[in-house]
Amino acid sequence: MIKIAVLGYGVVGSGVVEVIERNNAEISRKAGDEVAVKYILDLRDFPGDPHEDKIVHDFDMILKDPEVSVLCEVMGGVGPAYQYTKRALEAGKSVCTSNKELVALHGAELLELAVANRCNYMFEASVGGGIPIIRAVNSALTAERIQAVTGILNGTTNYILTKMAKEGMDYSQALKQAQELGYAERNPEADVEGWDACRKLAILSSLMTGKNVSAGKIRMEGITKISKADLEYARVAKMVVKPLVLGKMLEDGSVVAMVAPFMVPEGHPLARVDDVFNGVLVTGNMLGDAMFYGRGAGKLPTASAVVADVVDCAKHPGKTVWCFWNQEEASVADSSQTRRAFFVRAAAGSQDVLEKAFPEGRALLRSGGEDMGFITPVMKEGEFDAKCAELGDAVLGCLRIL
Amino acid sequence: MIKIAVLGYGVVGSGVVEVIERNNAEISRKAGDEVAVKYILDLRDFPGDPHEDKIVHDFDMILKDPEVSVLCEVMGGVGPAYQYTKRALEAGKSVCTSNKELVALHGAELLELAVANRCNYMFEASVGGGIPIIRAVNSALTAERIQAVTGILNGTTNYILTKMAKEGMDYSQALKQAQELGYAERNPEADVEGWDACRKLAILSSLMTGKNVSAGKIRMEGITKISKADLEYARVAKMVVKPLVLGKMLEDGSVVAMVAPFMVPEGHPLARVDDVFNGVLVTGNMLGDAMFYGRGAGKLPTASAVVADVVDCAKHPGKTVWCFWNQEEASVADSSQTRRAFFVRAAAGSQDVLEKAFPEGRALLRSGGEDMGFITPVMKEGEFDAKCAELGDAVLGCLRIL
Repeated sequence: MIKIAVLGYGVVGSGVVEVIERNNAEISRKAGDEVAVKYILDLRDFPGDPHEDKIVHDFDMILKDPEVSVLCEVMGGVGPAYQYTKRALEAGKSVCTSNKELVALHGAELLELAVANRCNYMFEASVGGGIPIIRAVNSALTAERIQAVTGILNGTTNYILTKMAKEGMDYSQALKQAQELGYAERNPEADVEGWDACRKLAILSSLMTGKNVSAGKIRMEGITKISKADLEYARVAKMVVKPLVLGKMLEDGSVVAMVAPFMVPEGHPLARVDDVFNGVLVTGNMLGDAMFYGRGAGKLPTASAVVADVVDCAKHPGKTVWCFWNQEEASVADSSQTRRAFFVRAAAGSQDVLEKAFPEGRALLRSGGEDMGFITPVMKEGEFDAKCAELGDAVLGCLRIL
Repeated sequence: MIKIAVLGYGVVGSGVVEVIERNNAEISRKAGDEVAVKYILDLRDFPGDPHEDKIVHDFDMILKDPEVSVLCEVMGGVGPAYQYTKRALEAGKSVCTSNKELVALHGAELLELAVANRCNYMFEASVGGGIPIIRAVNSALTAERIQAVTGILNGTTNYILTKMAKEGMDYSQALKQAQELGYAERNPEADVEGWDACRKLAILSSLMTGKNVSAGKIRMEGITKISKADLEYARVAKMVVKPLVLGKMLEDGSVVAMVAPFMVPEGHPLARVDDVFNGVLVTGNMLGDAMFYGRGAGKLPTASAVVADVVDCAKHPGKTVWCFWNQEEASVADSSQTRRAFFVRAAAGSQDVLEKAFPEGRALLRSGGEDMGFITPVMKEGEFDAKCAELGDAVLGCLRIL
């Protein structure tokens, strides 16, 4: 029997217990042995909970129990979670986690610790919830040189932008609705400013390069400045606005990594990824584009991904499965050299100025607007930024175009 | 070093050699050891080919070479391919294949042979080309009870229906273009009648049930009777026509399996899978729907999937990785009990008859048509078939609605 411990009995933790209980036959068949939860670590007591007898408060009890071979760290944060994970791996116990913050910050170090102790640190649930995107990169597309990942990895901002586009809400209305439905936190900063997506992109980019891409080196822009007018212009241009992450390998081995809202052409596979759904396009040099789509968050999809990791650990006792991310810092390229077209929203009457600044661009018209839209030709980001600075107050907003 | 043999130096076989050569560093890193092609088995000689020195004509040479641990069977057909695969597995050599015909016919038996000889029979490339759908079912979504697979798994028919819908071609024009581009065979029967999709669905349904679903038990309808008029009515109803495969687990453990063109609502994730692309929606009881999308055919995408299997074999010497498909015949349910809505194209003037036959249905109008369209309420397939038989010649065509 594979006995596991769940660290943290919150939303994901209770999901892990539920998934293991409800799908026990399938899970045990795939794991090759029966999987059972032995301990649940939490500060709180849960009187009356059907798993009350498994609740413990002392991590050492789990650490010292030789029967426990796999831990699910679903407590979040980087304080105790980091310490517990290190101690578990040092003791040769595998750790499966949904904690993207910890993986983005210490993934390389913890993977090396797992290798040294012939166990596993797995984090399928840290990116894309139930979508098996980490397995796609690590153990499915293994014959590919992965050249780029482009995706929608934050369901909250995708929900907000979908509502703004489809129901004509403005940003604050859509955010309020997302909060009411539990899709956004009371303090929504981590989502709307891009931190959550940034951590996920740091993880994917690190796996793509094999080196460490720090979240802090990723160019990040939130969605808070997007207006209803931007979405109307997007519709006129047959595009939609999506909160994207982009990681791209350059010829010299460096990586361009960026989190920002983009205008995406309607025919693009990511354009139809709406509401709280996530989608990731992986570009390989043999395969071309493959897309993975599904629920990027939520109790059961996320727990399902954690348990899939448990199954993988159970199938590989005494062996490290993944170790393609080392502590050497990846070279993160300056995005100012990246070339693309841009959308500019400008004060009404600025057409002449825009045409002069961006020859060969084209104006976009919307009915009843007090502003104007403009699409530039393909140019370097740095060059675009310089032109915008020159245009000063005439520029009301701008977006990259995929 | 992992030395492999490639059986068949055709399109996929030369792709396998090319992928291993071009991505050797990545592949060897993921495999944990250098991967190299030692033999290429083919009846022909290839004078001047850069791999001429590896060409052999005698299978026994490969079988008897203890250095060769993995064979790529990419020759197709079920004659020699079946014999070679059996003999290789009996000798403890793993086999990776793109041969869907052989997998659909003898997959369960060959998997058991692999288990008995502590090696692997892998077939990622047999379904969905470069899309890692077999891995999704076998080794990624391992915490799920998979309830259904719904997909577009035949690129040729998807291309034909896309051209008919988007460029107003009729069936024969679109087929001719697909043949000119090499997307369809000179004898297109296997694609347009549904055999190719049927084999792929047999494989996925077998993996979903864990038992054997024979292709011959799958209800199969081709796309040859679909007219431009059907596509116009689909547009009026905000739907598209797609060549689908459907496999669904029922409560009693039996499976409904069907290959047929369907009308799919425009907002459905599969509605946007166009041209030669494939897409598969997997429904799990925890995850909900996850979609996998990409190139379902082509030399390099297919070869990439074969090589991903080689990597997996290399990582697991002496160990069988997948064995979730046994020879017991699955119970395939009668699809006449399945409930859904249907589209009927009927002779002009049949509205009264249709409304009588299908109360609560609704008529669809298109401009300039000499026929009429009608959408029935949700009903059992068997009931629909009986009503259609009663209507006789008034029915010009019909399609299921997803």
